Amino acid sequence: MNDRFSEELFLTNETGRMLYHKYAEHLPIIDYHCHLQPSEILENKEFEDLGEMWLRGDHYKWRCMRTFGIDEKYITGDASYYEKYMRFAEILPQLVGNPIYIWCALELKRYFDIDEPLTAANAQEIYDRTKALIAEKHMTRRWCMEHSSVRLVSTTEDPTDDLACHKALQKEALFTRVITAFRPDKAMFCASPDFAAYLGRLSGAAGMPIGSFAELLAALEDRLQYFRDVTGTTVSDDGIPWFVWEDYTREEIEAIFAKARQNGTLSRKEIDQYQSAFLFEMARIYRRNGFVMQLHIGTYLDANTTRVRAIGQSTGFDCADDSSPVKSVGELLDRLTAIGELPKTILYPLDGTKIETWAILAAGFCDSGTRAKVQLGAPWWFNDQAFGIQRQFEACANLYPVSLSVGMLTDSRSFISYPRHELYRRVLCSYLGALVERGEYFSGEEELKKTIENICFNNVNEFFGFGVKR
Amino acid sequence: MNDRFSEELFLTNETGRMLYHKYAEHLPIIDYHCHLQPSEILENKEFEDLGEMWLRGDHYKWRCMRTFGIDEKYITGDASYYEKYMRFAEILPQLVGNPIYIWCALELKRYFDIDEPLTAANAQEIYDRTKALIAEKHMTRRWCMEHSSVRLVSTTEDPTDDLACHKALQKEALFTRVITAFRPDKAMFCASPDFAAYLGRLSGAAGMPIGSFAELLAALEDRLQYFRDVTGTTVSDDGIPWFVWEDYTREEIEAIFAKARQNGTLSRKEIDQYQSAFLFEMARIYRRNGFVMQLHIGTYLDANTTRVRAIGQSTGFDCADDSSPVKSVGELLDRLTAIGELPKTILYPLDGTKIETWAILAAGFCDSGTRAKVQLGAPWWFNDQAFGIQRQFEACANLYPVSLSVGMLTDSRSFISYPRHELYRRVLCSYLGALVERGEYFSGEEELKKTIENICFNNVNEFFGFGVKR
Amino acid sequence: MNDRFSEELFLTNETGRMLYHKYAEHLPIIDYHCHLQPSEILENKEFEDLGEMWLRGDHYKWRCMRTFGIDEKYITGDASYYEKYMRFAEILPQLVGNPIYIWCALELKRYFDIDEPLTAANAQEIYDRTKALIAEKHMTRRWCMEHSSVRLVSTTEDPTDDLACHKALQKEALFTRVITAFRPDKAMFCASPDFAAYLGRLSGAAGMPIGSFAELLAALEDRLQYFRDVTGTTVSDDGIPWFVWEDYTREEIEAIFAKARQNGTLSRKEIDQYQSAFLFEMARIYRRNGFVMQLHIGTYLDANTTRVRAIGQSTGFDCADDSSPVKSVGELLDRLTAIGELPKTILYPLDGTKIETWAILAAGFCDSGTRAKVQLGAPWWFNDQAFGIQRQFEACANLYPVSLSVGMLTDSRSFISYPRHELYRRVLCSYLGALVERGEYFSGEEELKKTIENICFNNVNEFFGFGVKR
Repeated sequence: MNDRFSEELFLTNETGRMLYHKYAEHLPIIDYHCHLQPSEILENKEFEDLGEMWLRGDHYKWRCMRTFGIDEKYITGDASYYEKYMRFAEILPQLVGNPIYIWCALELKRYFDIDEPLTAANAQEIYDRTKALIAEKHMTRRWCMEHSSVRLVSTTEDPTDDLACHKALQKEALFTRVITAFRPDKAMFCASPDFAAYLGRLSGAAGMPIGSFAELLAALEDRLQYFRDVTGTTVSDDGIPWFVWEDYTREEIEAIFAKARQNGTLSRKEIDQYQSAFLFEMARIYRRNGFVMQLHIGTYLDANTTRVRAIGQSTGFDCADDSSPVKSVGELLDRLTAIGELPKTILYPLDGTKIETWAILAAGFCDSGTRAKVQLGAPWWFNDQAFGIQRQFEACANLYPVSLSVGMLTDSRSFISYPRHELYRRVLCSYLGALVERGEYFSGEEELKKTIENICFNNVNEFFGFGVKR
Repeated sequence: MNDRFSEELFLTNETGRMLYHKYAEHLPIIDYHCHLQPSEILENKEFEDLGEMWLRGDHYKWRCMRTFGIDEKYITGDASYYEKYMRFAEILPQLVGNPIYIWCALELKRYFDIDEPLTAANAQEIYDRTKALIAEKHMTRRWCMEHSSVRLVSTTEDPTDDLACHKALQKEALFTRVITAFRPDKAMFCASPDFAAYLGRLSGAAGMPIGSFAELLAALEDRLQYFRDVTGTTVSDDGIPWFVWEDYTREEIEAIFAKARQNGTLSRKEIDQYQSAFLFEMARIYRRNGFVMQLHIGTYLDANTTRVRAIGQSTGFDCADDSSPVKSVGELLDRLTAIGELPKTILYPLDGTKIETWAILAAGFCDSGTRAKVQLGAPWWFNDQAFGIQRQFEACANLYPVSLSVGMLTDSRSFISYPRHELYRRVLCSYLGALVERGEYFSGEEELKKTIENICFNNVNEFFGFGVKR
Repeated sequence: MNDRFSEELFLTNETGRMLYHKYAEHLPIIDYHCHLQPSEILENKEFEDLGEMWLRGDHYKWRCMRTFGIDEKYITGDASYYEKYMRFAEILPQLVGNPIYIWCALELKRYFDIDEPLTAANAQEIYDRTKALIAEKHMTRRWCMEHSSVRLVSTTEDPTDDLACHKALQKEALFTRVITAFRPDKAMFCASPDFAAYLGRLSGAAGMPIGSFAELLAALEDRLQYFRDVTGTTVSDDGIPWFVWEDYTREEIEAIFAKARQNGTLSRKEIDQYQSAFLFEMARIYRRNGFVMQLHIGTYLDANTTRVRAIGQSTGFDCADDSSPVKSVGELLDRLTAIGELPKTILYPLDGTKIETWAILAAGFCDSGTRAKVQLGAPWWFNDQAFGIQRQFEACANLYPVSLSVGMLTDSRSFISYPRHELYRRVLCSYLGALVERGEYFSGEEELKKTIENICFNNVNEFFGFGVKR
């Protein structure tokens, strides 16, 4: 029985193997959405150990450790990275079928050339070996990115961010270009107790008063242009827990805004109206400033409120919401089309079980002059494993040409998560190879090469206008 | 690498290959739901070129071309069919994984015996070759149908249609019998601005006044009997954008009808009540006239209203709605069962991701005396490719005996889309073969032959009472 | 072509075959949720014939027979078991792809050592052969359970049940330990016309007045402790047709309860409030008494009301509801977490198409100190076949470690349905083997052995605290 990492991972057919090794394996990476801390890239410290690399901020692993009932001390608590690593190594062999298993295997192989499985028995030995290698090769944050041929990353920041780290990074000669995405979610969460205070901070950042919804938009556009000016970004990032389109008038929105500023209680209808107006207006701002709108739909944030209060947001207690009707986003796209102001748009539905209805929606709003103007995003978050990727290829290529896709992203907080692009490419090539072998595609190798290069590199580069040279 | 059309397309196992070539390949076709124009069948003109064959009315291709950002001129605009064909040929090699790729491949092979892939490079040569063949073989509309052994097609018409073309067709000796389906959707869309005017046209067609909901039903039944008398049809066709059952009284429905006739604004509840009453009463009409009720559920029509206004309905801007709860249709079936008036019914949910809950619903309303009284329809519209077909077999055979299925239809506006039946049969035989090879079925070849012949021909023939001889 | 039962059924790869035969095949069974009648276990009669074994209470088969239009006389009517068997045998060869086909094949093989397919042609011969074997081996209810190495079964009873049969069973020396699950559904169905009468029966059973919601809870807890005392059970069983969380106050619930007792008409909101309060309080009761909460979500009961009135509940007219948002159950789990009273919980969503969102939800509420505190249940009811099982492995292992699963149950009314555990184990081993062969797992045979033994036996034994020795 197979007991070593295999370079034929996921490649279940001859054609797929050939395609991967010949055309996909060595392509550089554009990681156009992640949650890296720019301060870490700037400081560029060497990692302490594999424990830090794996367990510093990765809520996927934290969440998984909790399913085993491991004490929180060894997850986000005050145990050392070494201790956390040792507890994690114990459960790793039980993660059969889970993406964390194969991500870890890929990370051990690609960064440390470790072929054998990590177990409780060899955990200490692998800890020591990786610690020595980190020191020997001076594995810093940037080293990891360069080692994986990452040519561009986009972090994501709040409009109030001064981008100090990003500014500093622009001055350095980096192998990996670093930009940021504009993420105005807090200005959309009008029912949050923090909303009024947030408006104050945003007003300060923009240097202009925010006494109305119209002024809020002006401040956001000011900050968006600042983001663009500092990093050259064209990337937006909207996170939408649920979306139900609700018609509104300008007067209603201003009244809702005024109430929200006073922390007044909003009805569900008022929140839906505000969200509808907010996304509609942000889309117009994105378009006139040359940004791509990225809608992340169905994030059931902070589902476990008690643990979030104790440990913090984005620590593994989010879930997936299934209540956003596809027609609601359709209303948004339709109204933007009606005024001729629909920006390039990428839809990321978190509920992967309904992915097809979203692919269909995207195709309904494509139009002359722009390749894949509205398209489905990469299988994201809970969907970013072989199963989710394969499903998206199989289900959605039927509904929207997969050759137009801007491909994979990590969405990660880790500096060694780039093998997720490798995983995606392997599944892609295996998928394409299977089509060929079943007779479903016979246009030849040159076309497949083009498709692979487009999906893995060219499409994203052109769609966002990054201008990265290969 | 495979660079020619393969006769083993989709056939991934030995048993499946044998079953397809031995039992499925040569069965004639009954295409019991399509959107062909009867006037075209009547006129029976030779096609101008492959451009006309492919791009005259096929919104699947139009929609796909728009995802590539191609100018509308070359899609539905005033460019020639030759120009449109050339633009389409350019993108075809990039449609890996998309059903349009394999449909085109099948059409080139079956109608023109072309094995090689169509590319930008050979597009002109293939254009010329197919144009010559069209002329040489006099490829008319009827030629295509006969060439594909199509023994019956059912177009679909509005109740106001005078069926002039159908009448004329009944008098000709045709290889392919042509009937029509009764599609009363416009009488259900009570909130449409066109509703009152439509009632006027229907009143004229039926030669009776329509001053009430009861009179509307009488007029519809009159027209339905006309449809039956002219073409011998037993096929209905209801398209339902969304369905939420809402209880009603006769008085409420008459009041809603009266309001709708005046173009008064209806509440969502009133529309739901009207739709509930309409489908309930139409079902009774279907049953007492020996029709099969076909419910097409979840059509998100005209999602992109701006482009629909510019280009027209059914030109590629429809999407799939995900908001019809299965229980709503359950309420309809239950109330019809309660009064003993449930007709034979076929359910076509457009949202393929939820197909199983509909298969389960169908089984709950089957009853003594009728084989498969309520059943799931063919994977339809956005689901009519290998993935959707395979999913329906794998998911739904578990919940409803697949051997009872009335099989595939094209739902197409094209005269050369019959290879979609071939595609379905290939996937079916491959599915059955895989079951045999995994040990999941071992009742022998004779039973499989019967199952294949039933699904591909006999079941539909008997369920609708077409009486086509094989 | 394969025409005999194969011991390699479902095992599509070498590694899977090895794993199944070496580690899974011979493990004993814990069937922790079924619908066997304890009176039948107590009486322990020999079966009359295969007709009784198959068609006495199995609504899966009844439902299937109705899709073929078979007269109800031969389904639940007054025909003899022999006649029913003969009608069923006729359709069996047409059940390709349906789990009933393979369940029957496994049952013929495991209980009667019959390898050949059952057809109309050999139905009489197999009837005679099985009848002789039943008599020769004295195949009683308990014989079936022992023959399948079933070490524990949990039936399910209403709180009003006096458990007389269970009491008697505790005194016998049984190969198979028999416990019961506590199923308080009727106390949750506050809008049922039977609600007030039910409260009377429950009051009698508990020997205490039920004049308020608080008293209802006290009576239920009393009965739950009785269930525990009599059979040592820790199993609950909540069936929830739909669940929408609705906030409430104690006063509101008492008012709703008072109205419900008078058979007053409740609004949908009141029903939702009552259900929310009921499940919240039952969860607290489960936790303080050491029970596992099992939520069965989305049972669209009695969809076909006419046939249910004629034939009875649970006779094949239930369907699957798709309207319970995952967030509603999330609210329940969150509120229980907030007060530190979330019991061990297993979620069984009936709508298998959305299984992933539920797996994600479960992981969000796991916590220190308990392995898999909230977890997804076995693919259940409409999902308990190879497709549903495989989907759950493929989809959910990505979102929740599958190695923590408590594995399969039959949920069955039949004494010979235990091969469903075999089916599950075959699919599990085939799934694991495929992961190994694709390079997705390489931690070795010993770990896979542990995983298989945990999923098939140890996890359920430990999670419920059954203490069964292997």
